[in-house]
Amino acid sequence: MEKIGVIIYGCGVMGRKIAHTVYSKKSFEIRGAVDTAPALVGKDLGELFPDKKKIGIIIGKDAEKVLSDKKAQAAVVATTSYLKDVASQIILCIKAGLNVISTCEELSFPWRSEPEEAAQIDRLAKEKGVTVTGTGINPGFLMDMLPLVLTAPCLEVSRVRVVRMMDSSKRRIPFQKKVGTGLTQKEFHEKIERKEITGHVGLLESIYMIAEGLGWDLDEAVEASPIPVLDERDVDTGLGRIRSGKVIGLSSTASGRIKGKEVIKLEFNAHAAVDEEYDEIYITGTPDIHQKIIGGVHGDIGAAAVTINSIPKVLHAASGLKTMKDLPPCAAIS
Amino acid sequence: MEKIGVIIYGCGVMGRKIAHTVYSKKSFEIRGAVDTAPALVGKDLGELFPDKKKIGIIIGKDAEKVLSDKKAQAAVVATTSYLKDVASQIILCIKAGLNVISTCEELSFPWRSEPEEAAQIDRLAKEKGVTVTGTGINPGFLMDMLPLVLTAPCLEVSRVRVVRMMDSSKRRIPFQKKVGTGLTQKEFHEKIERKEITGHVGLLESIYMIAEGLGWDLDEAVEASPIPVLDERDVDTGLGRIRSGKVIGLSSTASGRIKGKEVIKLEFNAHAAVDEEYDEIYITGTPDIHQKIIGGVHGDIGAAAVTINSIPKVLHAASGLKTMKDLPPCAAIS
Repeated sequence: MEKIGVIIYGCGVMGRKIAHTVYSKKSFEIRGAVDTAPALVGKDLGELFPDKKKIGIIIGKDAEKVLSDKKAQAAVVATTSYLKDVASQIILCIKAGLNVISTCEELSFPWRSEPEEAAQIDRLAKEKGVTVTGTGINPGFLMDMLPLVLTAPCLEVSRVRVVRMMDSSKRRIPFQKKVGTGLTQKEFHEKIERKEITGHVGLLESIYMIAEGLGWDLDEAVEASPIPVLDERDVDTGLGRIRSGKVIGLSSTASGRIKGKEVIKLEFNAHAAVDEEYDEIYITGTPDIHQKIIGGVHGDIGAAAVTINSIPKVLHAASGLKTMKDLPPCAAIS
Repeated sequence: MEKIGVIIYGCGVMGRKIAHTVYSKKSFEIRGAVDTAPALVGKDLGELFPDKKKIGIIIGKDAEKVLSDKKAQAAVVATTSYLKDVASQIILCIKAGLNVISTCEELSFPWRSEPEEAAQIDRLAKEKGVTVTGTGINPGFLMDMLPLVLTAPCLEVSRVRVVRMMDSSKRRIPFQKKVGTGLTQKEFHEKIERKEITGHVGLLESIYMIAEGLGWDLDEAVEASPIPVLDERDVDTGLGRIRSGKVIGLSSTASGRIKGKEVIKLEFNAHAAVDEEYDEIYITGTPDIHQKIIGGVHGDIGAAAVTINSIPKVLHAASGLKTMKDLPPCAAIS
């Protein structure tokens, strides 16, 4: 079997995690790596792996050069969450004739939030005969693809509700900071105002994907401002013991409505007082479906896995900008 | 939006349930119906609906005539479980230029159990530019498609185990008979020998689909003979109170092995002493995934729904014989 040649575009936390797994799978071969961070440029990509070793792939600064020099089929773009920032990178990949799989949250369903960028990417991808898909664990799987799949046994569906319950104290430190751990309530709200705390990027994209998959024409999709979570007790976190009264994480919600009725509800909880981690889906319909992933799905591993496992599906799809629901479902690659 | 024209081929319990829902959906229009049972031929299809009414579709005996007379895009073939029996019906549909969605269990993944029929159907479908897919709740969804989808967040998978736990006393009477309710153990084993009790058709097909989806080359896939389930207490069923010592249902299992190691295990339980109904999936991998559908999925409704919801995906797929994992996931149709 011929290996799928992959270029890693973005060698941060997620990019290097993806790269390490891609490197370990027989079906792939890493052919190049791009990053603009001075600390990374010129380094061997393998030095960023947990087992630090040379693999002969030097991280280049000049994306255009790396993308056109190296013979590959796909670029994994793991740079930022916002399509406005990542669109030019994706376009470089398309112009180099590469299929694109990106962890950019907004790319998971960009037609509503960034319609111009989405249309441009779709048009260019079709011209060059390549496919572009944004994916990850959430958005891309747990709060959109999986609930849609679970409506398959329903004759009718009237409401979809998804709840994620994550113990943030088990996650990496930057994530614990991102959810406001250790802040006062005042600091939390100030950071919300300065958009330094954003809740969870992608909730609206998940709502749009569910709605389109079910053929629902929403009148409204709104994301509420994240709510700080407090606890009566002191709570241990990766940032030390947090005194009662200070923030230990957040809860983010978003809703889709038709004629004022809430038909989609997504609830993302990440804090340090979670007793039981889980991912839960409630479908109201004929019949009702109530499913739970007991213990939840590890976010970082899941995000890397969904991204990698999507590569062959994206390569074999019709050209253009596709979302996860447009592709045959990806499964773990041996 | 132009409606999808559908012909119902087989107007038994499942066919009429599917027909009734197809009839109620704006996106479909029933254009013909076929059955060979003398009690059904010449009847209006709507008379078989729960609300018995004329819909102007007369059930015809001559499949070739109905299929060629009526302008439709898809035939739903709901006749029997075995591909050898249903292949000629599917071929008639293909020759009439119709896409085929069938509840035939063996068609859900026929490449191993009936490779010749599968190859013939695939070839003819490609010649005529149509798509053929076998589906349903199980096989087709709960024990194959859904576990595959749930491996998407895994970097590695070493084992897949699926358990269905169904309270047969809540199901229709023919089903309760099919699982041996009320028999003595001796009668149960005699019926097994005469193949009057078959356990659950499709377990091997589900194993084959999971293995292919994960890229696993199984050395062995075996279905164990169904085991009768007894209870210490007398148990109420749809066939009356069953005395302790008599059969109240069955348990069917199947395994897929690589080098003697069981890597796929499917367990189908349907009896009258089930305290809690559920459908559960255990994936051993990085990370482990443990998911449960609490309360399970109603078999008959689910089978009809998955079949109907697959129709648009089958219509838009590349031509040939496809399995559920080859199509974008179906979701409930509004």
